[in-house]
Amino acid sequence: MTHPDDDRAARTGVSRRGLFGAGLAAAGAGAGAAAGIGGATAATGVNPFTAAANGDESIDLSQSHPFYATAARQPQGGVQTAPQRYCVFMTFDLSTSVTTELQVLLARWSAAIAQLQAGKTVGSVEPAHGDGVGADTGEALDLGPASLTVTVGLGPGVFDERFGLADKRPAALADVPRLPSDNLQAGLTGGDLSLQACADDPQVAYHAVRDLARMARGTATVRWTVLGFGRASAGPHQSTPRNLMGFKDGTRNITTDEDHDRFVWVDEPGDGAAWMTGGTYQVVRKIRMNIEIWDADVVSDQQRVFGRTKIEGAPLSGGTEHTTPDFAATGTDGDTKIDATSHIALAAHEANGGVKILRRPYNYTDGLNEYGQLDAGLLFLAYMNDPEHFTQLQRKLGASDRLNEYISHIGSAVFAIPPAPRKGSYIGEQLFR
Amino acid sequence: MTHPDDDRAARTGVSRRGLFGAGLAAAGAGAGAAAGIGGATAATGVNPFTAAANGDESIDLSQSHPFYATAARQPQGGVQTAPQRYCVFMTFDLSTSVTTELQVLLARWSAAIAQLQAGKTVGSVEPAHGDGVGADTGEALDLGPASLTVTVGLGPGVFDERFGLADKRPAALADVPRLPSDNLQAGLTGGDLSLQACADDPQVAYHAVRDLARMARGTATVRWTVLGFGRASAGPHQSTPRNLMGFKDGTRNITTDEDHDRFVWVDEPGDGAAWMTGGTYQVVRKIRMNIEIWDADVVSDQQRVFGRTKIEGAPLSGGTEHTTPDFAATGTDGDTKIDATSHIALAAHEANGGVKILRRPYNYTDGLNEYGQLDAGLLFLAYMNDPEHFTQLQRKLGASDRLNEYISHIGSAVFAIPPAPRKGSYIGEQLFR
Repeated sequence: MTHPDDDRAARTGVSRRGLFGAGLAAAGAGAGAAAGIGGATAATGVNPFTAAANGDESIDLSQSHPFYATAARQPQGGVQTAPQRYCVFMTFDLSTSVTTELQVLLARWSAAIAQLQAGKTVGSVEPAHGDGVGADTGEALDLGPASLTVTVGLGPGVFDERFGLADKRPAALADVPRLPSDNLQAGLTGGDLSLQACADDPQVAYHAVRDLARMARGTATVRWTVLGFGRASAGPHQSTPRNLMGFKDGTRNITTDEDHDRFVWVDEPGDGAAWMTGGTYQVVRKIRMNIEIWDADVVSDQQRVFGRTKIEGAPLSGGTEHTTPDFAATGTDGDTKIDATSHIALAAHEANGGVKILRRPYNYTDGLNEYGQLDAGLLFLAYMNDPEHFTQLQRKLGASDRLNEYISHIGSAVFAIPPAPRKGSYIGEQLFR
Repeated sequence: MTHPDDDRAARTGVSRRGLFGAGLAAAGAGAGAAAGIGGATAATGVNPFTAAANGDESIDLSQSHPFYATAARQPQGGVQTAPQRYCVFMTFDLSTSVTTELQVLLARWSAAIAQLQAGKTVGSVEPAHGDGVGADTGEALDLGPASLTVTVGLGPGVFDERFGLADKRPAALADVPRLPSDNLQAGLTGGDLSLQACADDPQVAYHAVRDLARMARGTATVRWTVLGFGRASAGPHQSTPRNLMGFKDGTRNITTDEDHDRFVWVDEPGDGAAWMTGGTYQVVRKIRMNIEIWDADVVSDQQRVFGRTKIEGAPLSGGTEHTTPDFAATGTDGDTKIDATSHIALAAHEANGGVKILRRPYNYTDGLNEYGQLDAGLLFLAYMNDPEHFTQLQRKLGASDRLNEYISHIGSAVFAIPPAPRKGSYIGEQLFR
């Protein structure tokens, strides 16, 4: 089996295994030297998704990602960054209508995230003689940076009448409309702000969100949160992680810098939205999986639902995991080998006017549901330069996808992700000029 | 600062860092050669708690623990085993009253756990041509063993009128009585069977419990479950992991083989309970922490509550983390430096007739509570040769502990943990003879 990365590794003269470690180190040391938006990964040309997935069977918790931009149009971490193994996602409602209080919060968050991504505390854990409340809650002391990235998002509410920012609202930033097969819960939708903390240690990710939420007290209140796990990709034979249905997830994800430039990063938006240049949009969905029903299904049907084999992840039209699916190929019965309503057929960019979105999914579990069955699913995080791309895709999937029998979209929100700030500035600062 | 382990490592001529890797490998290769109950750790004499905590900053996911006993009185994994970073705990109610069905379940679980701990599936993921339901749900394919251990427990209900095992019931196996400051929720108590799956990858632990729960269908139904994380101990300067209050947890835990023999392993029980020789008892409590209230407290008070400093974890009587607390030492004001109602004063074996229990706690988070506050706490798992030791301790803590203002015991159960079976046998087999 050949793999797209093998070529790339061969061209740069480094092994894939070596790139996993070296790539991250290079990201820390030389991101500023990389030209353009691609940032960290442009330096090595390695695909961060498959590099992480195919990497060593050990996890290095001493890695850190820089927070501040050193070049124009540099994105925040946590988008193109090689997906870490854990994610804590949280949204907030702003309880203030004072614009400077929003600015102060974004500035305090920015300074704190820079500390956290360097593996430091956000302030004193143990004030002198203990006479005072700790600025940092302390549970991540000495744990190392663990590749933490915290990505800050601004929801549609930031641009309502409260803050005088209505004319800065990007036309693209709108709530995801009601979609077929939505089963949204009010407590799992929306938010004025979002934090996505990804790390290779869940205690590091949880600590980051907890201490940032503490800073927001008086300015914003927590709305909903999901704890994701399961970028659980460790084996040398596994090229793509698996979701809790046991299938590989993300085989045809965006990987190249060209596709990031074309589909992920915002390029010179019109109107008052110039502050979003080099940014992106985050669409998040909490997708419950009826895994106990799924587990009772015969594997041939599961494979028909996805359009891929379970173990290898190869398209049912043949080949291996990374073989391009042939949606026209027919079997001896005259039917297409890949069902037209399978997940990969409906989601394919070939069937969606060439549109691609960058997916960054994590598995989650909420224990048991009200029927005593396993309550689990997918924290679907996706990035794109126009949220309408998600809407188009999900409108089609929600109407026809064979997977709908087994899943339910219960949470939803959309956020603008400004580019990373330069040192001395803060996330979204350009918005307030 | 000196550390108890430094001596031990010096005696065996290996560095602590080296022992982390070597100790686990030795556990896999040579556990059978280790004399007596101590098993895996007896071979090296290393303290598995601090070895893991002080170990390398990387996690090796290729490690595996053997399942079957190769010597008499060998315990199940997951008790003295160096604590892995994640834990999925689940209890079950037996829905059958047919004794052989209980035997078959324990036998199937045993065979499956032996597979899982070796990093294998419990059966076919993709039956020939997909014509059938997969025996294994597949989401841990290629992830490696990740140091998985699954520990099986038998609750008091196994010995009720249903299965004819009443005369085999150990006198020590009784539900934990109502204790001061209990706030138990019916949905988080009891169970006829328990599974504790610990691994260095949460997807591996979750997969194990999910597929074992699937096997139980028709015989047992899921009762409650907790997903624990946060044996998050990685830094070279951290000797003990921290709970979500930011304090080190487990400094004075049982570490020596002598203490395991004295306080953990069951030695020749009377009555019909000979099958428990070499076993132990598991007490589990789900302890909610009011972390937002805790976070608002001044650190000097937090330290008074625990009786230790926050960063170093040193007893307030002086010294460093592993200095023995001096509960009689007084300050210039004439009061004891360690408050008599502090957590470490009340829990100390010196204050409890010398009794110790083996603690194996994990942090958990359940997202937000009904008030929109962070819902998190401690999955307290403990092992002892008499559950009454926990009851005595918690009766005292529940009545007086300064920590009670910030915590709430919401879940509780007790289980008998039989020793590990020999190959060809299964967990608890001796019980049915």
